[in-house]
Amino acid sequence: MQRKRVITLLTDFGSQDAYVGIMKGVIAAISPCANVIDICHNSPPQDILHGAYLLSTSYKHFPRKTIHVAVIDPGVGSNRDIICAETEDYFFLAPNNGLLSLIAHKEKFTRITQITNNAYFLPAPGHTFHGRDIFAPVAAHLSLGIRASQLGNSISQLEHIDIPQPVYKKPGQLEGYIVHIDRFGNLVTNITSGHIKEVKSNYKDIEVIIGKRKIKRLRNTYAEVGAGEPVALIGSADFLEISVNQGDAQQYFRAKRGDTIAIRSTVP
Amino acid sequence: MQRKRVITLLTDFGSQDAYVGIMKGVIAAISPCANVIDICHNSPPQDILHGAYLLSTSYKHFPRKTIHVAVIDPGVGSNRDIICAETEDYFFLAPNNGLLSLIAHKEKFTRITQITNNAYFLPAPGHTFHGRDIFAPVAAHLSLGIRASQLGNSISQLEHIDIPQPVYKKPGQLEGYIVHIDRFGNLVTNITSGHIKEVKSNYKDIEVIIGKRKIKRLRNTYAEVGAGEPVALIGSADFLEISVNQGDAQQYFRAKRGDTIAIRSTVP
Amino acid sequence: MQRKRVITLLTDFGSQDAYVGIMKGVIAAISPCANVIDICHNSPPQDILHGAYLLSTSYKHFPRKTIHVAVIDPGVGSNRDIICAETEDYFFLAPNNGLLSLIAHKEKFTRITQITNNAYFLPAPGHTFHGRDIFAPVAAHLSLGIRASQLGNSISQLEHIDIPQPVYKKPGQLEGYIVHIDRFGNLVTNITSGHIKEVKSNYKDIEVIIGKRKIKRLRNTYAEVGAGEPVALIGSADFLEISVNQGDAQQYFRAKRGDTIAIRSTVP
Repeated sequence: MQRKRVITLLTDFGSQDAYVGIMKGVIAAISPCANVIDICHNSPPQDILHGAYLLSTSYKHFPRKTIHVAVIDPGVGSNRDIICAETEDYFFLAPNNGLLSLIAHKEKFTRITQITNNAYFLPAPGHTFHGRDIFAPVAAHLSLGIRASQLGNSISQLEHIDIPQPVYKKPGQLEGYIVHIDRFGNLVTNITSGHIKEVKSNYKDIEVIIGKRKIKRLRNTYAEVGAGEPVALIGSADFLEISVNQGDAQQYFRAKRGDTIAIRSTVP
Repeated sequence: MQRKRVITLLTDFGSQDAYVGIMKGVIAAISPCANVIDICHNSPPQDILHGAYLLSTSYKHFPRKTIHVAVIDPGVGSNRDIICAETEDYFFLAPNNGLLSLIAHKEKFTRITQITNNAYFLPAPGHTFHGRDIFAPVAAHLSLGIRASQLGNSISQLEHIDIPQPVYKKPGQLEGYIVHIDRFGNLVTNITSGHIKEVKSNYKDIEVIIGKRKIKRLRNTYAEVGAGEPVALIGSADFLEISVNQGDAQQYFRAKRGDTIAIRSTVP
Repeated sequence: MQRKRVITLLTDFGSQDAYVGIMKGVIAAISPCANVIDICHNSPPQDILHGAYLLSTSYKHFPRKTIHVAVIDPGVGSNRDIICAETEDYFFLAPNNGLLSLIAHKEKFTRITQITNNAYFLPAPGHTFHGRDIFAPVAAHLSLGIRASQLGNSISQLEHIDIPQPVYKKPGQLEGYIVHIDRFGNLVTNITSGHIKEVKSNYKDIEVIIGKRKIKRLRNTYAEVGAGEPVALIGSADFLEISVNQGDAQQYFRAKRGDTIAIRSTVP
């Protein structure tokens, strides 16, 4: 019996169109037993960095041999490549536009293939919807067991986008920024638990600065502060988050993506 | 061959994040054949009563032995319990915060288990995303056939939230309120067909009061009134609904959730 | 082993309710192995023409014998019929309200069945949610292999809605309109590549008129113009589209659905 391989989809296609459904139709026609799972389709349009963030926080929670398909592709139809990057555990199909930059920080790619073999594309692929014409059929064929080497030649380098890292703007004060705001208004930063430990190993001795406000010490859980009060903690993807217990930190702080968040030690 | 068990997901996680996709990845890694079905992920954030409403109107339409996972959990990481409540037909995994209050009105629980056995959790569960770290893996293991007794000890009592019931504020006039407004602008109340029959058994002799307006008699279907006209009927979940045929009752009446709706008999 | 039949769902139910999830529950209870795929649920409420557009651009990408279920049904509960229209390759379940008008332009129906056999409905179907009570169970039974002739008698005619076609308002100038605007702000018209070839076979010699602005020649891909510049091309569903490379044509042109778009030849 055929293995039930997982294919994930991460796009900026939104939910008002049939684009995602069409990709699933193409997959089902080629690989009827594939288990297609949506990661997210509301990544901001054409925002590669944001898509890279969503992919990097989710890919590891899927079964081994999952085929992760990420289509945030402002250059569709240009001469940008489509690639298949493999790790020990996963396949990543994406335009070679930096969307895999954050994965590249975390994983070692065993092979990167430039996808050129149109035997695995839909017939007569167009120039505007490679999700349907190339990504979906290639993912489906991979789920049936073809090897990436059948898709094209290997290449040695990924394209990268600039991934802003936290920096020390003042001595002992590490500045990052808000990468993502979730539905609850939680402010997710680019500061990891590793960065924080460089500043101070004891979370009690860290304060977080957002605009002109300060939040004393990091907590483990929202409920350690009263309802409606701000709280800083390490969120589920290992990033520093600012939240309001049972509230909305985005509204509370009038924050937006890209705003600066800093941490510093409160003990000498 | 393994049975294809259904796991449903009802959350307030929205669609702009990868949270729901991540839960599905965790489930697929443990229980590859589970059939995961979304009930809704746009329940208003942290609104337990609304989640309870959505769950109560949908759970019965799923196959026997479905595992219903409901994560509307403003107390995540606090000392609130996570429970598995079983009926003859279904499993309900939820925080013990009242989210099952409406189910408890309709069903007899054969066992309520406090989930404590971390052998069925993801390793090192965090404090902010129990959907991923506890609910998803526990649901997946249940779909593989473990019994709830393996998850922890049984408890005797559910937490309940206050479920506002319609009341007689004036003689013969039963007042409820708008529980939910759907995408069509239909105003769903907490008044059931049972409540109405207490007032008057003949739907022709009931009038509905919304603000300063009255709608004469209950109908069976939208199309019994002209296009653009208001209509009151018993909706698909057995609740009194106010609609506008081919229109939008929310706009028509400038209504919002929580607004009062009353019914009274028009015959002595 | 049972074949894994695909059932697609296209509705205007949105994502704030449990309606779609409930339909999937009903299907899973009857046909546990069906592969249910969402085409779109955010078709504008009660907009049959828009639903017809979404269905017509997606149905062909699904496997043979897919059962396409389309529920945009302002007349639910009235005396409109529910039908099953069959082609060589597909089943279409829909209200007989014109939703299949665009399919009828492209496909030959081998049989149209008026669905009346309530043995395949949920018990005691209501008047307001036929998606749950009729469409879902009928689709599930079709996926198990019943024939449409078991659902009711065949009828000879579909209801049609008026599908506005491009017209020559001035000599050599073909006028269409914006049918759909996608998440990227791409303006999809009702002008096909076939229409354009009637005007001029060489895409270099076509100009597109939107409001007071003109776009010279049709391109193959967004990337043929600079970032932020408007571009006209034949999109993925064979319709003329106006886009802005790496931008948003809806904002750029302050366009809305229904606006006029014209094409004309630029050579004598």
